[in-house]
Amino acid sequence: MRRAVVLLSGGLDSAVTLASARSSGFETYALSVDYGQRHARELRSAGLVSAQLGAAGHRTVSLDLRAIGGSALTGDAAVPKGRTAAGMAASIPPTYVPARNTILLGLALGYAETLGAFDLFIGANALDYAGYPDCRPEFLQAFEALANVATKASVENLTRLRVHAPLVQMTKVQVIREGLRLGVNLALTWSCYDPTPGGLACGLCDACVLRRAGFADAGVADPASGA
Amino acid sequence: MRRAVVLLSGGLDSAVTLASARSSGFETYALSVDYGQRHARELRSAGLVSAQLGAAGHRTVSLDLRAIGGSALTGDAAVPKGRTAAGMAASIPPTYVPARNTILLGLALGYAETLGAFDLFIGANALDYAGYPDCRPEFLQAFEALANVATKASVENLTRLRVHAPLVQMTKVQVIREGLRLGVNLALTWSCYDPTPGGLACGLCDACVLRRAGFADAGVADPASGA
Repeated sequence: MRRAVVLLSGGLDSAVTLASARSSGFETYALSVDYGQRHARELRSAGLVSAQLGAAGHRTVSLDLRAIGGSALTGDAAVPKGRTAAGMAASIPPTYVPARNTILLGLALGYAETLGAFDLFIGANALDYAGYPDCRPEFLQAFEALANVATKASVENLTRLRVHAPLVQMTKVQVIREGLRLGVNLALTWSCYDPTPGGLACGLCDACVLRRAGFADAGVADPASGA
Repeated sequence: MRRAVVLLSGGLDSAVTLASARSSGFETYALSVDYGQRHARELRSAGLVSAQLGAAGHRTVSLDLRAIGGSALTGDAAVPKGRTAAGMAASIPPTYVPARNTILLGLALGYAETLGAFDLFIGANALDYAGYPDCRPEFLQAFEALANVATKASVENLTRLRVHAPLVQMTKVQVIREGLRLGVNLALTWSCYDPTPGGLACGLCDACVLRRAGFADAGVADPASGA
């Protein structure tokens, strides 16, 4: 069984990506990163999701991106609240973390190399790449090209490494439907960027707004609402 | 004055790279990474080197690569001792850290983005790329291509980002001569992969062997010998 490394934040998109990798026949190894995000709560979800979906392994790497800063998610600015989808698409949001997906895919590449895996999965999708430069297909292609000259296997000219983004053309409602189809327990996932001190979703950040709209469009109740 | 981010391990190569960036007219911002290396002693050298060479900033990011493993430098195997240069060139050594330069350059890219910098410097050189896949020119070119689709600036189509490896064609003796020419205090640098419990260089690992041979070939005494 071929192995794949799946970046797993604990949110909807990465959970569905993990299920997608599994349904494509891979033995899955989840990788989460504790990078000093406000919503470290999502890491608990990552553990629950990887267990529910039968990942063969799950590692969490600590990386203190607060030393670099530059993002609302690591505390350098306020998380925007109450924006519409159109408002979100107008510019790159302050929740963008500089070079995050370059760094996360680099870590996934390292983990893959130790496992003898040649397939990386990331939950980037169309809604993200409206706002985040490192979710665009051209970014994912460039990372795949890099990965193929970056590792021991590339020197020894072995198997070609692939970066998979199975949700890349999906909207949030399509992601939710795919997750339901693949049996993901969406109640276990976490989206909110800025939980309350009591650990509840704020309901107002971009991630909460997109999640709520996605469930509404899918015509199903969010099983994690209020969680 | 244009800003540049320089990856600074605290070894000879990165110290000379920092001096080279400065002599090219950049305001330099050094970035070190505490990734769980056996030789965390090099991080103290990084601080001393960045101060001696007048870096405008110096950040150290903590990243626990031991969670991924796969390298002698993070404790998963013994550091080879007493090898000749020919022995080192014969295969990728166990001191290779999976995807390290992809990850380090990713962090440098993030730091650069927060600074408004478009130039990254890394001390990769010919001796390294005999053994490490992610020191080769084709790797550095692929990372530059990635960086140019990875950031906010790339979406907004602004300045082109460059990856500089000023030592890439140099042997160790050439690096030492360049360092002396540029006024680097080489006594501050640290090379050993596997210091003794008392904090001395082991004298036998690949890094110690290459350093000693380099100083011998340059016809100068290593000012850090025994340090």
